[in-house]
Amino acid sequence: MNSVYEALLSRKSVRVFDNKEVQSYIKEAIFNAAFQAPTAGNQMLYSIIDVTDQALKERLAIACDNQPFISKAPLVLIFLADCRRWYDAYGEAGLNPRRPGAGDILLAIQDAVIAAQNSVIAAESFGIGSCYIGDILENKEEVVELLDLDEYVVPISMLVMGYPTEQQIDRVKPERFSKKYIVHENRYRRLNGEEHRDMLKERANREDFDFDGYIEKFCSRKYMSGFSREMTRSGELYLKNFLS
Amino acid sequence: MNSVYEALLSRKSVRVFDNKEVQSYIKEAIFNAAFQAPTAGNQMLYSIIDVTDQALKERLAIACDNQPFISKAPLVLIFLADCRRWYDAYGEAGLNPRRPGAGDILLAIQDAVIAAQNSVIAAESFGIGSCYIGDILENKEEVVELLDLDEYVVPISMLVMGYPTEQQIDRVKPERFSKKYIVHENRYRRLNGEEHRDMLKERANREDFDFDGYIEKFCSRKYMSGFSREMTRSGELYLKNFLS
Repeated sequence: MNSVYEALLSRKSVRVFDNKEVQSYIKEAIFNAAFQAPTAGNQMLYSIIDVTDQALKERLAIACDNQPFISKAPLVLIFLADCRRWYDAYGEAGLNPRRPGAGDILLAIQDAVIAAQNSVIAAESFGIGSCYIGDILENKEEVVELLDLDEYVVPISMLVMGYPTEQQIDRVKPERFSKKYIVHENRYRRLNGEEHRDMLKERANREDFDFDGYIEKFCSRKYMSGFSREMTRSGELYLKNFLS
Repeated sequence: MNSVYEALLSRKSVRVFDNKEVQSYIKEAIFNAAFQAPTAGNQMLYSIIDVTDQALKERLAIACDNQPFISKAPLVLIFLADCRRWYDAYGEAGLNPRRPGAGDILLAIQDAVIAAQNSVIAAESFGIGSCYIGDILENKEEVVELLDLDEYVVPISMLVMGYPTEQQIDRVKPERFSKKYIVHENRYRRLNGEEHRDMLKERANREDFDFDGYIEKFCSRKYMSGFSREMTRSGELYLKNFLS
């Protein structure tokens, strides 16, 4: 064990924050860690929106599946996969290259998420908790308007950050699935029915675990929910700009 | 400063490895760090392929824009955004939900990349260097066949890992762009021509920096290259399975 590895293992999401500002030197460190993340060809294919306007935080909290805790976060950062910046740089040099495509946005998404995760770990190292808000992918029309997004930009990751409350510090981190269900050697392998049942039961750590009941509720609450369908509608609209 | 933050700042890509195996306890730690990464709804929407077969490494090195150093890496991990596992779990419970869509794969990509970056940082903390291979998004047909990929799975991140050579340890980490070009307050903003020129010149740190010449070469070598066009062709094919 080492302190970096320990920090990675113990980090858990924080959704309730103390009413205490994040000091500016910590905020700068969070940005620096993002910038120093690995990036394809040193291009930094992302931009970060630092949401400082309280009214905007409140609009975003509603747009992101109506979660008020978002508006109470001292720090709200949105990581944009950005294919516009380099496209414009090419234009500035007098070039007229192809429009950004699927490969470009996938690479940019990767860059943006890597940078986001570096900022999460940096924040944690300064005692700042964080939570990813996947819902930033919903309500495309409104989010594009609120943030003035460009057609070649996708808001892939949103992070809320702040000092965790005591209750959040004490919260038990949920168990993950075991390695045997996640890691495959040399080839991908679909799990069979028994493995699916074992995987969920092991995670629940209960002999009387009701697989069918649990999955039915989970599917209806998550996968078949309004927010999930909306994310797929909006996600498709974002991706459309990059397809031939 | 703290040791975690320092580790994030100093990490740089490693492409040449010592001929030395990564010990199994370190490999386990790299996996554990991935599993403990933040994940949407605790779903772990990814799978990891651990490439242990040398012949497969060599095939992948060719499929990934013909980069022989890939086949020389002691550890080759491919992070798959995986919408198949939960879809099959729903089926196992007798449900028949909608097919995975754009929102689902974007969320899964996010999960996979977050896990990948945690494994990068964990590796680094044990003295193991790493490099992302974006080219795994190319040559879809061949990669799908080599890895037995499912239609609802996208190989978003590939990592090669191993002990760095002395030369790699001494290599200077390239400069990043300044914050003012990457972070915007409350709204996205396209940079103007002057800003593009300043951004590149500042990073180069040379008074005689030739913006037009640099960008023209970069564009032709990267953005307009065969591998980049191929990535966009393949990327679109991967995404197509998630579009309505």
